Amino acid sequence: MRTALDTRPVFHVAGALMSVLAVAMLAALLVEIGAGGGEWMAFAASAGITLFCGVLLMLMNRTERVALTLRQTFLLTSVSWVLVGAFATLPFRLSDQLDLSTADAVFEAMSGLTATGATVIVGLDTLSPGLLLWRSLLQWMGGIGIIAMGIAVLPVLRVGGMQLFRSESSERYEKVVPRASELVAAVMWIYSLLTLCCAACLALAGMSPFDAVNHAMTTLSTAGFSTRDASIGDWNNPVIEWILVVFMMAGGVPMARFVSALRGDLGPIWRDTQVRWYLGFMAVVSLVMAAWLYATLDLPVDDAVRLSTFNVVSVVTTTGFVSGDYGLWGPTAIMVFLILSTIGGCTGSTTGGIKIFRFEVLFMVLRVQIHRLYTPHRVLPLRYNDRSVDADVMISVMSFGFVYMASIFLVALALGGFGLDLVTALSGAASAIGNIGPGLGPIIGPSGTFQPLPDNAKWLLSGAMLLGRLEFFTLLVLFGRAFWRG
Amino acid sequence: MRTALDTRPVFHVAGALMSVLAVAMLAALLVEIGAGGGEWMAFAASAGITLFCGVLLMLMNRTERVALTLRQTFLLTSVSWVLVGAFATLPFRLSDQLDLSTADAVFEAMSGLTATGATVIVGLDTLSPGLLLWRSLLQWMGGIGIIAMGIAVLPVLRVGGMQLFRSESSERYEKVVPRASELVAAVMWIYSLLTLCCAACLALAGMSPFDAVNHAMTTLSTAGFSTRDASIGDWNNPVIEWILVVFMMAGGVPMARFVSALRGDLGPIWRDTQVRWYLGFMAVVSLVMAAWLYATLDLPVDDAVRLSTFNVVSVVTTTGFVSGDYGLWGPTAIMVFLILSTIGGCTGSTTGGIKIFRFEVLFMVLRVQIHRLYTPHRVLPLRYNDRSVDADVMISVMSFGFVYMASIFLVALALGGFGLDLVTALSGAASAIGNIGPGLGPIIGPSGTFQPLPDNAKWLLSGAMLLGRLEFFTLLVLFGRAFWRG
Ligand SMILES: [K+]
Ligand SMILES: [K+]
Repeated sequence: MRTALDTRPVFHVAGALMSVLAVAMLAALLVEIGAGGGEWMAFAASAGITLFCGVLLMLMNRTERVALTLRQTFLLTSVSWVLVGAFATLPFRLSDQLDLSTADAVFEAMSGLTATGATVIVGLDTLSPGLLLWRSLLQWMGGIGIIAMGIAVLPVLRVGGMQLFRSESSERYEKVVPRASELVAAVMWIYSLLTLCCAACLALAGMSPFDAVNHAMTTLSTAGFSTRDASIGDWNNPVIEWILVVFMMAGGVPMARFVSALRGDLGPIWRDTQVRWYLGFMAVVSLVMAAWLYATLDLPVDDAVRLSTFNVVSVVTTTGFVSGDYGLWGPTAIMVFLILSTIGGCTGSTTGGIKIFRFEVLFMVLRVQIHRLYTPHRVLPLRYNDRSVDADVMISVMSFGFVYMASIFLVALALGGFGLDLVTALSGAASAIGNIGPGLGPIIGPSGTFQPLPDNAKWLLSGAMLLGRLEFFTLLVLFGRAFWRG
Repeated sequence: MRTALDTRPVFHVAGALMSVLAVAMLAALLVEIGAGGGEWMAFAASAGITLFCGVLLMLMNRTERVALTLRQTFLLTSVSWVLVGAFATLPFRLSDQLDLSTADAVFEAMSGLTATGATVIVGLDTLSPGLLLWRSLLQWMGGIGIIAMGIAVLPVLRVGGMQLFRSESSERYEKVVPRASELVAAVMWIYSLLTLCCAACLALAGMSPFDAVNHAMTTLSTAGFSTRDASIGDWNNPVIEWILVVFMMAGGVPMARFVSALRGDLGPIWRDTQVRWYLGFMAVVSLVMAAWLYATLDLPVDDAVRLSTFNVVSVVTTTGFVSGDYGLWGPTAIMVFLILSTIGGCTGSTTGGIKIFRFEVLFMVLRVQIHRLYTPHRVLPLRYNDRSVDADVMISVMSFGFVYMASIFLVALALGGFGLDLVTALSGAASAIGNIGPGLGPIIGPSGTFQPLPDNAKWLLSGAMLLGRLEFFTLLVLFGRAFWRG
């Protein structure tokens, strides 16, 4: 059984992805030149370095095209996120205008690529167009990577119960598009189409075309970077907020479901219990919180509904757009948003968090657990979307939940050790691991940035974003000695 | 399969337990009269009412002695804790000196019986001896109930993975004493003997005999009521603190392990991985925290070690004795103590919390999970103390963990809704559910009491203590309609 891991195909593919990143840098370069911004040197240098290193990596690791083994797929997933993240740092690091430290540049790049949306940049309102576009592009491309990983990679790796979404036995996915790679391609079209729709709506509602495109890219990727320091609050425009609510919600739906919906068959999207729980949960929480805001803050009904819905949808879809500081709504609101920030949207979308299907499996398990206590000999078959939920799935899902919670506490503990207060440490950890963006409290809350944090906190949070995005286990397996021995 | 639940044997046994409670009230009555306290009327009335109701319940539910069914055992466990808790309220409610509201009296009785040790009474220093003894007696007797439940009831009910400790197939327990009831009797002797030893040591170290007996009773039950408002801090005596450390630690060991130890065979207690992890964990955390206190608070080495060890042992064993306000050690200490308060000691002891064996199973599952991700076809047999850990055990243990965490968040959320701040709400919920006693922060922290909380918070916390003590599922099964239909 012992076979050394052949890393050539892994680095070959990673090199290809870096080359794609270089092309995106060239796009930002063109915009920067076209807009007459002063940062074209940073983009030119970044694109050159990245393309050179990417192509070199491809050439150095040429290999006959073979199917990747399980271990190679694990390694590839982690390696490509780390390498692409490292080179995405370059434009931030090389920019004269920004003058970021390495920790800051890595934080911003990782926050972009993982679609987290936490920022260390103060002064977005005056930032050069190329850099603004680079931040949005990173999130949009990161979103593609996240969806592709969720559809094609994680189900094969059986991470956190994702085996429930394996395509071999998934009749529904099969009917839509036969193979995973074709499905990914179809989903990319949908994702691009939705982004265009969102941009058009935002432009019609009064955003400049540039702002509209940028926000559309960071909305569909549920990522949350903005072109303004005050985020969406800067426009103070209810129509824009409602448009974003709709597209954030769309961003949290499994993108593959839109493929059949676009062909006129709304069946699969409605029958998907994950989508129903996801929409139902946000609707209920938004309404309850709107009622509570109406009662306690004495707001007009429509403002209360909009404020509540926007912020609930922004946190549950893990987008992290800001239209007001919900941290000021009191200690109960802080606890509610801390809990909401761990929920997440549907799998197969760009959202972070634990994700709805895991809660469905968990509640299924608990209900059966209680029932089986007094009827130990009755075996209840569990089904999820026509798929059997066996003990292996249950244990995978629950393990994911524990690692998720434990990671939040461990990161928060370390942040506390770096001198941060309780609310900043807890919400910062939950926000990074859930790939949300803003935290709570005066420093990293909706009206703050991560700039004031110490460097070690920024490094830790950059790692936490990656860990959450790779759903923990993809990265954790690499730390076992047995993984490398085979 | 549908059979109506025969509740007669359930209420018959509950009536017997109430009669035992009445006898304990008579003991407190004698002490109150002997010490010349003014509360003998409260005890006489309570004992009369409780004895009358208990005997009446026994007579009304006479039945041929039959083995209890699974459902009857579930019902009995919950009903007896609720009924005994309700009648244990009487001396507090009827006392002139205390003048407690019903919510306060129920809180104090539930906190006593569940060995939690949170108090709403201000002015312990001047409280009548009978009432002080009643509080300690409640905890000591509650401790017996907890151990008996942990040895004989919960393993049969298969609550939260306790099937790992079923005696039918437990060779080790079998060797010590053949049947569960005899084991319970043997354990009661050990428990009483350890209590006497503890009382003798405390008296020799300088406590009055009355205080020594009271504290011994609340130490071995890892319960934590004191006879002074300042708790153990009142004595300011290092020897007393170290004695309590030793007996708190003993209180968290599975009491059955002492049966063979007392016979000179230390093998079983050393070979028990739960005991080793329990002692090892406390030692490591105490030392790390001592080093941290030494470095940051500039204390002498011996003070740092004692302060750290006492408070860590007090929280991990869920005793909740107080020798200083660790809430003042900063935000990291607050997070550390919040996390420590969920750990708990060994099963088969009086400790609350999640308990060490569940963490052992959890880590076992996670290690195997990670390994199985890249070697999906290899099946690793898992063993815990020579018992096989199957999927059923894993799912039970993990379900317990989730219900535990979710309960803390839900109770904290409700407490926040009642107007409490974040730290008070979170630590109060964790303390009640873990049956620890004190929370964190200025109100319910080590130097405060639960007296200032609103009545609805006291009711909720009383329920939370019971829920945690019954390990959730014992109580939760009663809320399913299917339970009653059979
Ligand atoms: K985000
Ligand atoms: K306690």
